Amino acid sequence: MSRIDGRTPEQLRPVTIERGWSKHAEGSVLVSFGDTKVFCTASVTEGVPRWRKGSGEGWVTAEYSMLPRATNTRGDRESVRGKIGGRTHEISRLIGRSLRAVIDYKALGENTIVLDCDVLQADGGTRTAAITGAYVALADAITWAQGRKLVKAGRRPLTGTVSAVSVGIVDGVPLLDLRYEEDVRAETDMNVVCTGDGRFVEVQGTAEAEPFARDELNSLLDLAVSGCTELAVLQRKALDTVLEK
Amino acid sequence: MSRIDGRTPEQLRPVTIERGWSKHAEGSVLVSFGDTKVFCTASVTEGVPRWRKGSGEGWVTAEYSMLPRATNTRGDRESVRGKIGGRTHEISRLIGRSLRAVIDYKALGENTIVLDCDVLQADGGTRTAAITGAYVALADAITWAQGRKLVKAGRRPLTGTVSAVSVGIVDGVPLLDLRYEEDVRAETDMNVVCTGDGRFVEVQGTAEAEPFARDELNSLLDLAVSGCTELAVLQRKALDTVLEK
Amino acid sequence: MSRIDGRTPEQLRPVTIERGWSKHAEGSVLVSFGDTKVFCTASVTEGVPRWRKGSGEGWVTAEYSMLPRATNTRGDRESVRGKIGGRTHEISRLIGRSLRAVIDYKALGENTIVLDCDVLQADGGTRTAAITGAYVALADAITWAQGRKLVKAGRRPLTGTVSAVSVGIVDGVPLLDLRYEEDVRAETDMNVVCTGDGRFVEVQGTAEAEPFARDELNSLLDLAVSGCTELAVLQRKALDTVLEK
Amino acid sequence: MSRIDGRTPEQLRPVTIERGWSKHAEGSVLVSFGDTKVFCTASVTEGVPRWRKGSGEGWVTAEYSMLPRATNTRGDRESVRGKIGGRTHEISRLIGRSLRAVIDYKALGENTIVLDCDVLQADGGTRTAAITGAYVALADAITWAQGRKLVKAGRRPLTGTVSAVSVGIVDGVPLLDLRYEEDVRAETDMNVVCTGDGRFVEVQGTAEAEPFARDELNSLLDLAVSGCTELAVLQRKALDTVLEK
Amino acid sequence: MSRIDGRTPEQLRPVTIERGWSKHAEGSVLVSFGDTKVFCTASVTEGVPRWRKGSGEGWVTAEYSMLPRATNTRGDRESVRGKIGGRTHEISRLIGRSLRAVIDYKALGENTIVLDCDVLQADGGTRTAAITGAYVALADAITWAQGRKLVKAGRRPLTGTVSAVSVGIVDGVPLLDLRYEEDVRAETDMNVVCTGDGRFVEVQGTAEAEPFARDELNSLLDLAVSGCTELAVLQRKALDTVLEK
Amino acid sequence: MSRIDGRTPEQLRPVTIERGWSKHAEGSVLVSFGDTKVFCTASVTEGVPRWRKGSGEGWVTAEYSMLPRATNTRGDRESVRGKIGGRTHEISRLIGRSLRAVIDYKALGENTIVLDCDVLQADGGTRTAAITGAYVALADAITWAQGRKLVKAGRRPLTGTVSAVSVGIVDGVPLLDLRYEEDVRAETDMNVVCTGDGRFVEVQGTAEAEPFARDELNSLLDLAVSGCTELAVLQRKALDTVLEK
Repeated sequence: MSRIDGRTPEQLRPVTIERGWSKHAEGSVLVSFGDTKVFCTASVTEGVPRWRKGSGEGWVTAEYSMLPRATNTRGDRESVRGKIGGRTHEISRLIGRSLRAVIDYKALGENTIVLDCDVLQADGGTRTAAITGAYVALADAITWAQGRKLVKAGRRPLTGTVSAVSVGIVDGVPLLDLRYEEDVRAETDMNVVCTGDGRFVEVQGTAEAEPFARDELNSLLDLAVSGCTELAVLQRKALDTVLEK
Repeated sequence: MSRIDGRTPEQLRPVTIERGWSKHAEGSVLVSFGDTKVFCTASVTEGVPRWRKGSGEGWVTAEYSMLPRATNTRGDRESVRGKIGGRTHEISRLIGRSLRAVIDYKALGENTIVLDCDVLQADGGTRTAAITGAYVALADAITWAQGRKLVKAGRRPLTGTVSAVSVGIVDGVPLLDLRYEEDVRAETDMNVVCTGDGRFVEVQGTAEAEPFARDELNSLLDLAVSGCTELAVLQRKALDTVLEK
Repeated sequence: MSRIDGRTPEQLRPVTIERGWSKHAEGSVLVSFGDTKVFCTASVTEGVPRWRKGSGEGWVTAEYSMLPRATNTRGDRESVRGKIGGRTHEISRLIGRSLRAVIDYKALGENTIVLDCDVLQADGGTRTAAITGAYVALADAITWAQGRKLVKAGRRPLTGTVSAVSVGIVDGVPLLDLRYEEDVRAETDMNVVCTGDGRFVEVQGTAEAEPFARDELNSLLDLAVSGCTELAVLQRKALDTVLEK
Repeated sequence: MSRIDGRTPEQLRPVTIERGWSKHAEGSVLVSFGDTKVFCTASVTEGVPRWRKGSGEGWVTAEYSMLPRATNTRGDRESVRGKIGGRTHEISRLIGRSLRAVIDYKALGENTIVLDCDVLQADGGTRTAAITGAYVALADAITWAQGRKLVKAGRRPLTGTVSAVSVGIVDGVPLLDLRYEEDVRAETDMNVVCTGDGRFVEVQGTAEAEPFARDELNSLLDLAVSGCTELAVLQRKALDTVLEK
Repeated sequence: MSRIDGRTPEQLRPVTIERGWSKHAEGSVLVSFGDTKVFCTASVTEGVPRWRKGSGEGWVTAEYSMLPRATNTRGDRESVRGKIGGRTHEISRLIGRSLRAVIDYKALGENTIVLDCDVLQADGGTRTAAITGAYVALADAITWAQGRKLVKAGRRPLTGTVSAVSVGIVDGVPLLDLRYEEDVRAETDMNVVCTGDGRFVEVQGTAEAEPFARDELNSLLDLAVSGCTELAVLQRKALDTVLEK
Repeated sequence: MSRIDGRTPEQLRPVTIERGWSKHAEGSVLVSFGDTKVFCTASVTEGVPRWRKGSGEGWVTAEYSMLPRATNTRGDRESVRGKIGGRTHEISRLIGRSLRAVIDYKALGENTIVLDCDVLQADGGTRTAAITGAYVALADAITWAQGRKLVKAGRRPLTGTVSAVSVGIVDGVPLLDLRYEEDVRAETDMNVVCTGDGRFVEVQGTAEAEPFARDELNSLLDLAVSGCTELAVLQRKALDTVLEK
């Protein structure tokens, strides 16, 4: 059985990670998982939020948003509606937690890094693309901060790498990296965030149609770990390129 | 090694499920998991939201909230701040999805049931207590709707039962049903929602301090399934009692 | 003529005042006037709002809210609507003013006490039950603050007691402590807040159907004063009980 | 003892009621109680709010607001803050209730009248001036509606007249129609709304410093009734003038 | 061809500028351009917004608003809707920029002046009347600040005068100072803000129906400059009157 | 004298107009004026807003927004602040008016087109780039609507072309198409929107430092018209390319 776009069940979509997409941000990436495109910027500021002042520790947070016409039907802007929706809140929090999992706050010192992940075009997996791209923007921002001596010499604020992928069961078959058409048909849908060494940072599985059994969960986790590992290689490759700015 | 309150790692806190706590609501429950107390009401209205009209299908949704002094330090009211926080949004969505997992929309017909879960006192596990209690309020509300012929004779809108519990790793030991003091110290924190037959509806695991390995995940899932099964028995027992109103 | 629930015109509903209902709050009460149940917590914090800093004086304020299904028909949450309604604002302000009437700010010192009054179930008289219960929670909170030496030895921040009751004219007959069914039928509706020695703190009378004459006003005030006096005795009795915590 | 501005305790400030102050509104009045100036407009629209459709009955409502520099110190605009304060809400509701007390909804038919009361300059008694002026604007608007046949021939939507005044106890002396300087010093503060025949529509008394006794309440009510009666004469006189437009 | 109200194309409506309309504000003006009436107050406070502290420079800003029934049909209050509309924002910013064009921030010192322009009645040209009136209120406020020594002796914060007028092409004819009926029929609509010496502070032209040609633009600018010059004379005359307060 | 980037005063920055940047939107363009990059999408929906229903006429509107890190310093998201700022409102309205100037509503029929202009990177002239790019997206959307028969055969909703450019006086020299560094130093700043035949749709000039004289205004208008004409050629060229999708 092959998928809509001819992939095998355990195959990622074509992934691109373009660094240096903004001339202003300390780190910036345009990441694409197939037709899903997310623009990630990392902004460094000296100082931390009030509740953290004097702790000697830094802070990393994230904001996710969709442009109104990122999807097939135009959605209202949250700025126009005057409030942020639950889905946006939920994903922003997920991205922030995922990146903080590989941050050593002490090593970062009292600096704040904000990751903005704006979805320019959506085709499933926007949150996992966002995490995967934001990690690369974050890494660049930390290098920048080290260059400016905002981070003390010899300190390494990044303790590992992090990437994310969606998995799901469609027509009884576990699939890696769902496109939108697959996502809406999935019986079970799971987003998994892993470190480069294959451990879990976040596991979020949801029964969309039917509750799922333990062995289904296991197959999905297997797929996800292998997908995240592959993404970690692509992140490394992107970061190894010399960035001209 | 014993826990703060003397429990073994795989032991739930004392759980109470009091039905009929409101004279107005079609279903209502005061649920407690130890010192965590959540007041759940189920409100039935004929009709469905606009986007679902004419479908012949019903809708179930949930709203979670904490009273300002449910916690040790008073928090601002979200109504006063004029917006709902990300955590509240996230949990409301989780409760709604969890209950919808055991609903047959066709059988429910064009009726809407709203579950309100208001935390009167918090001591860890408020979202899992809310799901567990809301299920019972939902069941009562459906019985009420059947009595009023809002649901057609012979239709069974509930396709199963649902309960939830938190699990986590504290000092390297997997524990069931964390109290607040345990929750803040947990290296990994997971909320699991299961059906009465032991399948998964939601699995949400988060690395708080360290990424977690596959075998840790497995131990946590084992604990959670056994906890949910035990809760399902308590829900059944509560529902079997004749409710005088 | 007897009332729906068999009371005489000058009779209160059964009143209960349960202290210690929260393990977190410095004072907490579940008060019921018949089927009206309000959960009141008093939260003490050191310091005062900015506009009062350095004055040596404390502050007491209140927030009132209804759970969405406290009433017969579910109401939208004010947090979801993003704004507080006029009725909520009005009652919160009334409760705050009523309690401040028996506070000596100097004796309280630069401490703030917030009274949260959340209506769990409504059947008329929620604001008067809230004031009556909040007074008891406030008294407990002040005792707590004295125990912690937040209030200087020998200072007595409470200068009196305060309780409240509704009165109204239904079918030409002045009635004490209206239930919801009576309230909606009342020609005139009045809420009266008194000190324990029978003086007035607030008098709010509204002609619902017909303007009312001076002698009707006088009958209502007579009823209200006697009701408040009775409530003051119940408050005293509740506070005289030793609270095990 | 004479007052700051030389009045006797039972004397109103100079009152002016100028009709026809807006060329757009169906009724409009600039009312002044001394230095307090409120601009009141009455806007008539055919139809009623959704919850009242098909009832054959009309609706009257009011919105009160202060210009930012109506007071001695500039206040933030509520539109800029994005929410309406409790005081504004409370007064808007009071004005609406007061005017509805003299409206026969059936006679008005399915028409809505909105009273806007904007305080141009404040010097105490803004809500009572607003009610007194809004009544006159309302009367003009109803005459307009009758002229346009929006109100059926022979129907009289106005069942009486309404006016309002503040009273208070300052240094132990009951005073009528308080200026700002008196208002801030008042031990007890009361707003009273009466019909032209001396019955009560609203009585709102508040102990600012000390709880007040029954005989103090009685003196205040005496003063208020006489003040309202005097205002009713001034309203009548204003309405008797032929308005050139 | 004569206009609705008999004016020639290059004629202003009757303009009145009444100073001292508020007893509280440091400067206040009721300005009318025909039936357009705007109440302008200037409020002086010591200190500047945070981002300007320590600069030694002052700040001038403006807020424009329409009363709900300033227009022919009642509009919702922005405070009730909870947000400020685009038109209000745009005009507030225009007024602020226009007045800042004649302010020497250094000479003003660290003081802030807020101009509130509230439209009591609208008949076209509310923003130009607001600017013209606000200038006079601003001048009075600066004189007040000089009298209180908030502005250092010998410093002149006002570097010139500013007035504004609308122009437009109606049925092919360029007209000065449009009334509402003319404004809605205009093919091109322009607001021009000039200094007293005939230079431009703001030029905002909009094609309402048809794009406009360079020579049409030139005719409109000619008209506008002559109108602004005339208004500057009226401002001077108003300011030369001795104001009794 | 040459400019920072070596341009002559009357030279545009390199302009690119890439069509087909979104797979979802009916028209989409990534436009760049030098380092300023704006992503424009045009979304077509059948039907019109309520106030226009039954008129047989269509509607075109626009929303402008900046990504938080489009600028050198990160700005707060308007969705997070819960309200839209004045600048955003002002520019959204300008874009909408500019495009409506070349729309024949009757020919468009009861369809709505929303232009979303999101600034990915800002370096001066974001509103003029937005208008210039949005016009191209609009043209594509109309072609799409004609293909789907939403627009009746033979009707031409677009009556002309529209482009925009900024001009300003820096150090006394009139310059075309200001970069950010030039913009902040400009004494006078002007945005001009022209049709392809050189007539004006919008002229917005602001004195930033000094009021400007008529001849300065004339030089700026000359520059702007020539810039807009050049942009119209580039728009035509972009639209003449066959778009593969």
